[in-house]
Amino acid sequence: MEGVDHLSHERSKAQFDVDEMKIVWAGSRDAFEVSDRIGRLVASDPAFRKDNRTILARKELFKNTLRKAAHAWKRIIELRLTEEEASRLRFFVDEPAFTDLHWGMFVPAIKGQGTDEQQQKWLPLAYKMQIIGCYAQTELGHGSNVQGLETTATFDPKTDEFIINSPTLTSSKWWPGGLGKVSTHSVVYARLITDGRDYGIHGFIVQLRSLDDHLPLPGITVGDIGNKFGSGAYNTMDNGVLRFDNVRIPRDQMLMRISQVTREGKYVQSNVPRQLVYGTMVYVRQTIVSDASCALSRAVCIATRYSAVRRQFGSHNGGAETQVIDYKTQQSRLFPLLASAYAFRFVGEWLKWLYTDVTQRLQAKDFSTLPEAHACTAGLKSLTTTATADGIEECRKLCGGHGYLSCSGLPELFAVYIPACTYEGDNVVLLLQVARFLMKTVSQLVSGKKPVGTTAYLGRAEHLMQCRSKVQKAEDWLIPSVVLEAFEARATRLSVACAQNLSKFSNQEEGFLELSADLVEAAVAHCQLIVVSKFIEKLQEDIPGKGVKEQLQTLCYVYALHLLHKHLGDFTSTGCITPKQASLANEQLRSLYSQVRPNVVALVDAFNYTDHYLGSILGRYDGNVYPNLYEEAWKDPLNDSVVPDGYHEYIRPMLKQQLRNARL
Amino acid sequence: MEGVDHLSHERSKAQFDVDEMKIVWAGSRDAFEVSDRIGRLVASDPAFRKDNRTILARKELFKNTLRKAAHAWKRIIELRLTEEEASRLRFFVDEPAFTDLHWGMFVPAIKGQGTDEQQQKWLPLAYKMQIIGCYAQTELGHGSNVQGLETTATFDPKTDEFIINSPTLTSSKWWPGGLGKVSTHSVVYARLITDGRDYGIHGFIVQLRSLDDHLPLPGITVGDIGNKFGSGAYNTMDNGVLRFDNVRIPRDQMLMRISQVTREGKYVQSNVPRQLVYGTMVYVRQTIVSDASCALSRAVCIATRYSAVRRQFGSHNGGAETQVIDYKTQQSRLFPLLASAYAFRFVGEWLKWLYTDVTQRLQAKDFSTLPEAHACTAGLKSLTTTATADGIEECRKLCGGHGYLSCSGLPELFAVYIPACTYEGDNVVLLLQVARFLMKTVSQLVSGKKPVGTTAYLGRAEHLMQCRSKVQKAEDWLIPSVVLEAFEARATRLSVACAQNLSKFSNQEEGFLELSADLVEAAVAHCQLIVVSKFIEKLQEDIPGKGVKEQLQTLCYVYALHLLHKHLGDFTSTGCITPKQASLANEQLRSLYSQVRPNVVALVDAFNYTDHYLGSILGRYDGNVYPNLYEEAWKDPLNDSVVPDGYHEYIRPMLKQQLRNARL
Ligand SMILES: Cc1cc2nc3c(=O)[nH]c(=O)nc-3n(C[C@H](O)[C@H](O)[C@H](O)COP(=O)(O)OP(=O)(O)OC[C@H]3O[C@@H](n4cnc5c(N)ncnc54)[C@H](O)[C@@H]3O)c2cc1C
Ligand SMILES: Cc1cc2nc3c(=O)[nH]c(=O)nc-3n(C[C@H](O)[C@H](O)[C@H](O)COP(=O)(O)OP(=O)(O)OC[C@H]3O[C@@H](n4cnc5c(N)ncnc54)[C@H](O)[C@@H]3O)c2cc1C
Repeated sequence: MEGVDHLSHERSKAQFDVDEMKIVWAGSRDAFEVSDRIGRLVASDPAFRKDNRTILARKELFKNTLRKAAHAWKRIIELRLTEEEASRLRFFVDEPAFTDLHWGMFVPAIKGQGTDEQQQKWLPLAYKMQIIGCYAQTELGHGSNVQGLETTATFDPKTDEFIINSPTLTSSKWWPGGLGKVSTHSVVYARLITDGRDYGIHGFIVQLRSLDDHLPLPGITVGDIGNKFGSGAYNTMDNGVLRFDNVRIPRDQMLMRISQVTREGKYVQSNVPRQLVYGTMVYVRQTIVSDASCALSRAVCIATRYSAVRRQFGSHNGGAETQVIDYKTQQSRLFPLLASAYAFRFVGEWLKWLYTDVTQRLQAKDFSTLPEAHACTAGLKSLTTTATADGIEECRKLCGGHGYLSCSGLPELFAVYIPACTYEGDNVVLLLQVARFLMKTVSQLVSGKKPVGTTAYLGRAEHLMQCRSKVQKAEDWLIPSVVLEAFEARATRLSVACAQNLSKFSNQEEGFLELSADLVEAAVAHCQLIVVSKFIEKLQEDIPGKGVKEQLQTLCYVYALHLLHKHLGDFTSTGCITPKQASLANEQLRSLYSQVRPNVVALVDAFNYTDHYLGSILGRYDGNVYPNLYEEAWKDPLNDSVVPDGYHEYIRPMLKQQLRNARL
Repeated sequence: MEGVDHLSHERSKAQFDVDEMKIVWAGSRDAFEVSDRIGRLVASDPAFRKDNRTILARKELFKNTLRKAAHAWKRIIELRLTEEEASRLRFFVDEPAFTDLHWGMFVPAIKGQGTDEQQQKWLPLAYKMQIIGCYAQTELGHGSNVQGLETTATFDPKTDEFIINSPTLTSSKWWPGGLGKVSTHSVVYARLITDGRDYGIHGFIVQLRSLDDHLPLPGITVGDIGNKFGSGAYNTMDNGVLRFDNVRIPRDQMLMRISQVTREGKYVQSNVPRQLVYGTMVYVRQTIVSDASCALSRAVCIATRYSAVRRQFGSHNGGAETQVIDYKTQQSRLFPLLASAYAFRFVGEWLKWLYTDVTQRLQAKDFSTLPEAHACTAGLKSLTTTATADGIEECRKLCGGHGYLSCSGLPELFAVYIPACTYEGDNVVLLLQVARFLMKTVSQLVSGKKPVGTTAYLGRAEHLMQCRSKVQKAEDWLIPSVVLEAFEARATRLSVACAQNLSKFSNQEEGFLELSADLVEAAVAHCQLIVVSKFIEKLQEDIPGKGVKEQLQTLCYVYALHLLHKHLGDFTSTGCITPKQASLANEQLRSLYSQVRPNVVALVDAFNYTDHYLGSILGRYDGNVYPNLYEEAWKDPLNDSVVPDGYHEYIRPMLKQQLRNARL
């Protein structure tokens, strides 16, 4: 059966140019070309094999990760890959490793918070991996509340050094990736104490391990924090614990771009604006949003292909059974996730633009859009990661029993993905920040302050508070302005209602705490509006390729209308739409599903994932699921012997009624 | 710090008698006493240690499970435990094993489908575990669609035998627990072919392995299907694959209670009603509902205790920070899950009663309530397992970063629980069955047929279609009849709307397929109504103990009103309640959360789980989380050496720029 494409019939049904869609998905022809080339490179290199990952014990697994990381770096050097290519390579290797933190947090932290000299000193070492760094912020006792961190960095003017110390058990650094076993250095966040005063949390570059023999330096206790969710998954990462017993570092290892400690121990603010820090946050969160679209699209790709292969029920007089993807319940669970993957892709692209825009403004000392950009990225990080985590698990369920097997790829994808809901800001804590920003924006409306960017619609609050949807027939739900207005009206009404309820409290802070569950819902409504509006904006672009734009249009409305259905209570109870209009939306949604159906396999092909990257027997490109599932089973270590280890000690005595005297 | 109770302050705040609540939770004083005693027995026996489960490789893990199963059985014999005690013991051992299928499926299948002689022959062997059995229904190609199974059992009149065969790859049995490595026997489902005709799926007792040396019998290929979701978790179970190459079994190993094949090969129906099969299904699904309440309550117990220990933000002038359980967002996510655990407990209890009732009626040849009972258990299985799976993951998120550690217990609990959404009927497929039953019930209303049991309310459809909720102030949402009517009206209106839309289709079956997503929602509404109404009924009972009933009342309304909020669109768009009434419900819900708050730790103490059973450092009874997290970390195999395996081969060459010539 080798070489047969079991999904060719599905592929032939597609009503659009898949190659052009691949380019839309990748972002540009160039990006596609790089991604495609590097994807194949990784897939064809046996050193990057990963199908055994879920059965390896922790130590083997970890050693294997070290090997792959070294091999990847070797290839990057040998092939003289560009930064973009190297980052795609790490993406396709698809295994969390210390290098993620080195490139993704350590280097950016030095870039963002180090002075020019510090950058000149440390970055070249980091770029060549002569040192390996991680990012040690979270402690056993404090994660979300960074201001509550307990590690201290006390300046000693006698020796011109900082003394880094862990005064309590809860001050132990806890969670930093790459810390446990690999990193030689770390950016460590600690309370800066000098001149008898506590100046709060600052970053310091601290060497942790000897560059000669890798042993922890004196005063440093460091190790791995132990097993995490799932098999394989994030256990390739050495998230670590770290304690300092009065460890001394030179003064110039404090990251001093924004504030300094002088030789005399005076604390000084530089004239570099503090807001710069937010720029880095916008950057990191933007990458998280784009990762969300990758993880979700991957799960959707697996579930879609398998749903086209899987048949169950509906055979009459011996014919083939129904493909489960033809069941409307399957469609109503799967297609919104497909649409979400595309939606998150486009909003991620837009965030990249936003980051550039913010950076340019910062350089021009224009801080006006920063709070809005910050709230927007925080909210989108929260929205997309929550939806992706839930979506991966839904895709697994959509695969029935077989989705529960590790070789479906979905369990590991879920386990490795979900911490994105927690790191870089717990998703609920982030939504509360968004809500705070929204309340501020609403409260400033009366004073005539014009809301900017993604909150601009609140400037039309008066209209949006009383407008009525004009939908009269199902097709009206395909008019961009109609959809947009419904989402704007909903977001406005929820925000304004919260603001009104808040104003009844004499103490605003108390009110905020009391109403926080409602506030979170208002924040979600705001963020969903952003995603919908950016998708609609995307459709305004010139998009070449036969049928490509039409498909994206369909997906855009699937995304919007499924949200409308899911949050119907918001829309109807605030009077944005009537029950009749809601049922027309539902009708339209059903008809959109029928339009997606013939294109659905091609729509996931457009992600251009290799079978290596997907890592799923159910999601194989050729749809040849059953023989491969069957073969895979026999590889389990339990099948090494026909009669299992333990038979003589435990099973046989049970069957033979000889347990009573057995020593177990 | 040993012996200090960090949660004593929380416990002292409770406004009710926790010991009495423990009895309510257990179901009776007797049940409590047994459960408490056996729970301690297991917890204090080092042979049942399970804290190393997530780091064992598959073979070790499995061998360990065999040991525990043997030890458990030994203890059961030695202590002469009753059936109830033995089943509690297996419950507290808390490790999926072949014994689950032996006792939970193999024995009940023979009891339900075997003739008296067959029962007399096989049950004593099974009761003494002289044979170990499993339940082989699902195949690689067919799970939900049992009628599509491909394994054949062809009667050979020459030898008076059945020939069991696997004609295709997809006919391989796939998934049965206990099959892969342990079972000596199985109930195998296969197409019965005799007299040149295919009589569809029937059950057969087939011996798989030799009782002498455990080798598979001739013609049988059997093995484990490989790694499943998570570490530890369900990998202690040997879900298996099984192929038959024309394996012969005596005719009397067909399970013949309901139909027989005679010596001559004639197929005969017995006078035992076929409906008996449904009785077994009601039984099995009832146990799944009660398991759901256990799994959910366990997750809730962990998240609640940890949320009371964890503090984050809100410290002013150096005081203690806020316990995260005091945040309203935390409460609005956690408390409904606590309420759901109690709700599922009570509906599970009621299902036990329903099973007895159905059984008695069956014996009296009264089949009138069977379809309703069947739909009701199918729906409740689906509802409670979905909510529990989602709820466990929500509890994990509620624990922030630390919830992602295996030692929080939540990852394994999730991984081991989720297949409950798939086995014994995929949850969506089950809801479609419920919907089918509801549509039938509605369509029969016109003919005057009175709906029974949990559908009785549909008899008042006329009233429920046009009634308006009488709620005028928040407290009105605490009137049982008001809440019930809102849920009844919603369920009725969704069902009737579906029925009306269905009637527009000329082909009913096509209509059903087309509208299935809506139909599923109507089924969910119906099932939620059942849970709410059984909780309210429970409150009508005499419940002793200071404050106990009051707490249950609070939880009952939390359960109902959070559903109302979650599905607000259903309620408002069908006009059951007005937006104003919805916002009063929300207000009431907030006030209920405040009432739960001081009692919440005591409410999870009432589950009476030992620390052994919980298996969670975050959920420890004494709340002494941090020192134990810290200690646990060092036990990870990665910490066996300070410098990790692989340093010399991979890390050092990277740091020293010597990769180029390295062989990796
Ligand atoms: C896989 C993984 C990798 C990580 N990598 C790193 C790393 O490299 N470096 C590093 O420094 N850290 C890392 N972290 C730590 C991570 O950043 C924190 O776990 C995260 O910030 C969440 O903080 P927490 O764990 O303290 O959660 P908590 O704040 O304890 O959250 C617990 C609960 O409290 C709620 N809560 C908290 N505050 C509030 C509030 N004000 N209002 C309402 N609710 C609230 C939360 O919503 C949550 O439900 C990692 C974590 C994980 C899981
Ligand atoms: C851990 C575990 C243990 C198990 N133990 C046993 C055991 O001991 N013995 C045994 O015999 N089996 C066992 N099973 C198998 C289990 O019973 C099946 O997996 C289950 O019945 C689901 O069937 P499926 O896998 O074929 O799912 P599928 O039917 O293939 O489901 C795939 C998707 O199709 C959808 N779908 C299917 N039919 C329809 C329809 N008519 N309308 C709409 N949508 C539809 C489903 O909703 C799902 O989204 C076990 C499974 C697991 C995961």
